Amino acid sequence: MNIDRIRAAAARLAGHAVMTPLLESPLLNRAAGRRVLVKAECLQRTGSFKFRGGWSALTSLPSEVRQRGVIAVSSGNHAQGVAHAAELLGVPAVIVMPSDAPALKIANTRAHGAEVVLYERATAIRDELGAQLAAERGLTMVKPYDEPEVIAGQGTCGLEIAAQARAAGVTEAEVIVPCGGGGLTSGIALALAAEAPGLRVRTAEPAGFDDTARSLVSGRIERNASATGSICDSILSPSPGDITFPIIAAHCGPGLVVADADCLRAMAAAFLRLKLVIEPGGAAALAAALAQTNRAPDEAVICVASGGNVDAALFQTALDRFGGDCN
Amino acid sequence: MNIDRIRAAAARLAGHAVMTPLLESPLLNRAAGRRVLVKAECLQRTGSFKFRGGWSALTSLPSEVRQRGVIAVSSGNHAQGVAHAAELLGVPAVIVMPSDAPALKIANTRAHGAEVVLYERATAIRDELGAQLAAERGLTMVKPYDEPEVIAGQGTCGLEIAAQARAAGVTEAEVIVPCGGGGLTSGIALALAAEAPGLRVRTAEPAGFDDTARSLVSGRIERNASATGSICDSILSPSPGDITFPIIAAHCGPGLVVADADCLRAMAAAFLRLKLVIEPGGAAALAAALAQTNRAPDEAVICVASGGNVDAALFQTALDRFGGDCN
Repeated sequence: MNIDRIRAAAARLAGHAVMTPLLESPLLNRAAGRRVLVKAECLQRTGSFKFRGGWSALTSLPSEVRQRGVIAVSSGNHAQGVAHAAELLGVPAVIVMPSDAPALKIANTRAHGAEVVLYERATAIRDELGAQLAAERGLTMVKPYDEPEVIAGQGTCGLEIAAQARAAGVTEAEVIVPCGGGGLTSGIALALAAEAPGLRVRTAEPAGFDDTARSLVSGRIERNASATGSICDSILSPSPGDITFPIIAAHCGPGLVVADADCLRAMAAAFLRLKLVIEPGGAAALAAALAQTNRAPDEAVICVASGGNVDAALFQTALDRFGGDCN
Repeated sequence: MNIDRIRAAAARLAGHAVMTPLLESPLLNRAAGRRVLVKAECLQRTGSFKFRGGWSALTSLPSEVRQRGVIAVSSGNHAQGVAHAAELLGVPAVIVMPSDAPALKIANTRAHGAEVVLYERATAIRDELGAQLAAERGLTMVKPYDEPEVIAGQGTCGLEIAAQARAAGVTEAEVIVPCGGGGLTSGIALALAAEAPGLRVRTAEPAGFDDTARSLVSGRIERNASATGSICDSILSPSPGDITFPIIAAHCGPGLVVADADCLRAMAAAFLRLKLVIEPGGAAALAAALAQTNRAPDEAVICVASGGNVDAALFQTALDRFGGDCN
């Protein structure tokens, strides 16, 4: 992985991905005691950054390989990102999802033209099922994070942050990134190391799912004890990847950990102050920034809001708890 | 009013206002049966387009006049737009608001550094109060819409739409604009007439507050029978302005009228598909577009989402009613 691969992905994404804005709110700044800039990646196609990686991966394939189709194993944002990239490129996509995935996610994935193959969580080994389908049908597997062209696509978000922060007069800051398997984090870290070395990446993870924070401490890949148990569904990957972790270890500061309630509070703040819909996992970075109360007024912070695919009921819970109270 | 004034305002706003994105959702397009592009002006500073007009008006004043301060009469988005522009420019701002305005709006206006002067709706004539304060203190009144430099500022949104629509491959389309007093509508109409003549503006208003639609039919300025009675609080002005109406009459197609429930449904669609928080009045254009069910698939429509300043409770009402049901 290197910056040239990210720049090449940016060239392929130009005109296809949204150049998402870097937003700030004077009233949010006032509440936080410093500038808080939010990279609104929830406004990306399909509601999360995952479209970048999906498009990058598919457009990096040789044409005859791509035409045979692609396959992804995901019940979440990666599914929609890959399905929509395939739809735009006119190639078949198969998405392997658990049969108990939310009906809306299955419906959305199908609406993007993908064939959804359901499996029973209790009985099937999903990665084997995916590999088997890929072999049978000649499909190319698009992994969610531990794949160079996927990382390169997510890294284009970092190129945009570098340019937008410079335009906003910010050259020294922490850039906090919600972290699951580390594709977005590693891509942004590589992009900023090359283009904006005064911007230093830190990860944000939910309490109990801080595999990357612990891996950064121990220096080797650590795993989470549990696979479920946080509302931050989009960033509960079991461990950082074999490709992503060395990049994160080389470029990122200590990992930050947030409680689910901090994420709900950040979602309410984004509603009130930024007019953005952010999903719980996507709000982890803003949550971490708002929890840092001991920072100097001249220390700006940049938070990536990585996605906005949240059900109405959970969003309402955030507003119920913090919608009148997050100043 | 002319396009040069809008271009001059754009030069003054560059680097100060957000270049808000023109967003679309493949799933929203699918539901609507055509491309629906949304100009996300709810992401503008202070949560609505009003910052554009406020900044334009203040920066057009001679320096010695501006330094004495400005005054605005508003309980809504104009108050925050003017207050924040004054705050950034370091000049005093007085905002005249009714004493029964929502506490949050008063608090936000004060948080932007403005002096808030409250009046009793029952007894005071607010415009006289504003004029008296302006005279006593040497303040310049910034009117909410019927003022050329305010219209020029709002028109910069139209310059952006022209360029962004072109980049999205849209050269022929209706551009639907939520319309109160007509400052945003007239500014956008002038900008598009000059820069993108294939984009034709239409207004969207709430049922019972369709003063502009009726004025376009009769050819003269008509007034609303009532001042309150819709959730679309930001676009309930009594009539189009003396300056705005002739521009609207010259450039806009027939006015569209929407029910409050249509606006709630559009708010839920923006939540689910665009990850945007839109206020009821700001959703009127998207509501009108989604209600047009007889359009050809090749007729793209552009909707301005003019603001996002909505209380959590009302937003939750939109999600309760339509959050699972707006496909």
